[in-house]
Amino acid sequence: MNIEIITIGDEILIGQVVDTNSAWMGTELNKVGFEVSRITSISDDREAIAGALHESLSRVPCVLMTGGLGPTRDDITKHVLCDFFNTRLVFNEQVYSDVETLLKGRVGHINELNRSQAMVPEGCTVIRNPVGTAPVMWFERDGGVVVSMPGVPSEMKHAMIHEVIGRLQQRFHTDHILHKTVHIFQIPEAVLAEMLSDWEDAIPPFIKVAYLPQPGRIRLRLTARGSDAGVMQRAINQAVDALQPIVGRYIFGYDDDSIEKRLGEMLVARGQTLATAESCTGGAIGAAITSVPGSSAYYNGGVVAYGNEVKHEVLGVSTNDLNIYGAVSEPVVSAMARGVQRLMRTHWGVATSGVAGPSGGTPEKPVGTVWIAVCNPQGQVNAQKFAFGPFRDRTVLRSVDMALMMLMNELLDDK
Amino acid sequence: MNIEIITIGDEILIGQVVDTNSAWMGTELNKVGFEVSRITSISDDREAIAGALHESLSRVPCVLMTGGLGPTRDDITKHVLCDFFNTRLVFNEQVYSDVETLLKGRVGHINELNRSQAMVPEGCTVIRNPVGTAPVMWFERDGGVVVSMPGVPSEMKHAMIHEVIGRLQQRFHTDHILHKTVHIFQIPEAVLAEMLSDWEDAIPPFIKVAYLPQPGRIRLRLTARGSDAGVMQRAINQAVDALQPIVGRYIFGYDDDSIEKRLGEMLVARGQTLATAESCTGGAIGAAITSVPGSSAYYNGGVVAYGNEVKHEVLGVSTNDLNIYGAVSEPVVSAMARGVQRLMRTHWGVATSGVAGPSGGTPEKPVGTVWIAVCNPQGQVNAQKFAFGPFRDRTVLRSVDMALMMLMNELLDDK
Repeated sequence: MNIEIITIGDEILIGQVVDTNSAWMGTELNKVGFEVSRITSISDDREAIAGALHESLSRVPCVLMTGGLGPTRDDITKHVLCDFFNTRLVFNEQVYSDVETLLKGRVGHINELNRSQAMVPEGCTVIRNPVGTAPVMWFERDGGVVVSMPGVPSEMKHAMIHEVIGRLQQRFHTDHILHKTVHIFQIPEAVLAEMLSDWEDAIPPFIKVAYLPQPGRIRLRLTARGSDAGVMQRAINQAVDALQPIVGRYIFGYDDDSIEKRLGEMLVARGQTLATAESCTGGAIGAAITSVPGSSAYYNGGVVAYGNEVKHEVLGVSTNDLNIYGAVSEPVVSAMARGVQRLMRTHWGVATSGVAGPSGGTPEKPVGTVWIAVCNPQGQVNAQKFAFGPFRDRTVLRSVDMALMMLMNELLDDK
Repeated sequence: MNIEIITIGDEILIGQVVDTNSAWMGTELNKVGFEVSRITSISDDREAIAGALHESLSRVPCVLMTGGLGPTRDDITKHVLCDFFNTRLVFNEQVYSDVETLLKGRVGHINELNRSQAMVPEGCTVIRNPVGTAPVMWFERDGGVVVSMPGVPSEMKHAMIHEVIGRLQQRFHTDHILHKTVHIFQIPEAVLAEMLSDWEDAIPPFIKVAYLPQPGRIRLRLTARGSDAGVMQRAINQAVDALQPIVGRYIFGYDDDSIEKRLGEMLVARGQTLATAESCTGGAIGAAITSVPGSSAYYNGGVVAYGNEVKHEVLGVSTNDLNIYGAVSEPVVSAMARGVQRLMRTHWGVATSGVAGPSGGTPEKPVGTVWIAVCNPQGQVNAQKFAFGPFRDRTVLRSVDMALMMLMNELLDDK
């Protein structure tokens, strides 16, 4: 069944904000069998909102809207919906109490603007929003459904996951769509496609395969569509199992697994611990590792050694090495990995040192040069040099990725 | 003058790709006075493309389309445009020669699919694309302009910058548009709107104001439209100046400024340095600070003190405090800030310790409880407790934000 999305906000049209909500909604809706057939972005303008809504409802039975629900003057979605559905705003005690609870301790007093958040169109179904002040509104007319949600991504996502998607599934019939994503690392896309050629020929035609490459890894997405969920699930499971003998060594997870989550599982299973020493990544590896709940079981901590004094004084890197080879070098990054492993008394130590740029590059070490080292429990260091190019943010992201992948590889090799 | 954008591609609707093209185009068009009034994303479907184009042309005199111009079967934009403008595909020597030049050395031979790229609709203006194989096509009918561009961001951007924007400026008269964004922190949206009510009433009607809230801060965007750029610029400047006596203390930057960038400027101006001691944020504050080029001038480094041993052994937090008050407490976070300031010999020390969750909460310290401390150059510590709610990622993000804002506040207070 087709759904249209309407995102409201001048900030999208002038390019101040990239509309990431629609992509997220498209992905989630797809998982449960809905297809997004159109995304329309318009400004906080009465005619534009009413016009777009009218057009969408003439094409599809369900429209999801985000944005324009804040308490300030430029937010008019609620008023336009009132006009559109020929109703008026009424005060909702429940919403007011939710707003009070949420703002308690955050603001001194609930003012008129906060209070206005509790005014909702009469006749719509109000869905409570525990993570923000604007409630979600569900309208029904002539067999069509319109849902208005806040544009703040965390609030929209909370509403979708906990309320809207379930209600849509109850309200509309959909085909089954099953997805399974397999995360594979260290095989280039074209090589993987070649390795999987026979496997692709052997899977049933109702399973579609897509290769989604990211730096250093590939998401292989299997999608089955049909009416018998049992048959589809078994076929997907078989196809995934059949991958094991071909590329099992390179599969590090499925679906929402991340490399940092998988690393955590492996370290927990071995009863081992990890510490990080970061220069060019500035703490981003620690942030990635600790994004996993329960990471305190295996991650003792790290040192962000941005200055050379910190590398020497806290991590014990020799001043000699720093002077002779420079901070971005194999001896220094290796000493950093060893140093933090010793300082935090862990089994594993991971270190980075690089030229993130835009300045600081030299002919021998251009911007984007990064050394990454992993020290194993036996004290052996594997250090590698990378060239990640001229963009600072990209260099940091790729360094984090690569450090985690190097660690996973070492863990797989370490018996 | 209003322009609509139509982006074509299934990958956008299923959420596999976030449509960043539209935001970029919106920004660039705005700079030269065009306004994007609607963005429509549709699939590679004949009816959808023709329908969306028809609707857009009924609203605005100019439509920019991206996507669906590749050589494979699913790319049908060119054929739909042929039907729409009642014309046929003809072979274009110039385009063929461009494709040949581009592919030379990349592929073994020019195959039929590559050759088909040189077939273009008769009667359209063909704009050469030196960075890809699909040319840009410019159509005119009944005073309306339709431009079809490749969806590959680098190709679209090249065409826009070098050809399309200039041609649009020649073809259409535009108003001027000026934007100014003011970054304000530590005032909730509804309170700010109340404080600025008189100010909003006093600014000229051709300036529009929008509140764009983010956790702990708000972007206030002023947009002026008109024909006299000088008048508009003066009016915007006056409006921004008029904010100073009302909320000047809470303004931390303008336009592309970020809080971490502004902090860097303030530290550099004072010749002062900073170190971080992070528990629940796991390195994310260090990562934010070092996202600013040149941050090595004032950021010595940090300690990710995830385990209590690291807090004690590396940062010198007393075992007594850890046992009596627990890791998430004022004495511990204060000792962490002092400890890292001493260890890295910096002027400022910032520390976090909290319960990121989802587990580890207690009735006294529920999930989301975070202590943040800032130690100033005189050794005085300001520590505050926050309740950021149940979501781990959000708690980390808000902790980072709040830590940076507390530091800015202390810097503003420190004479």
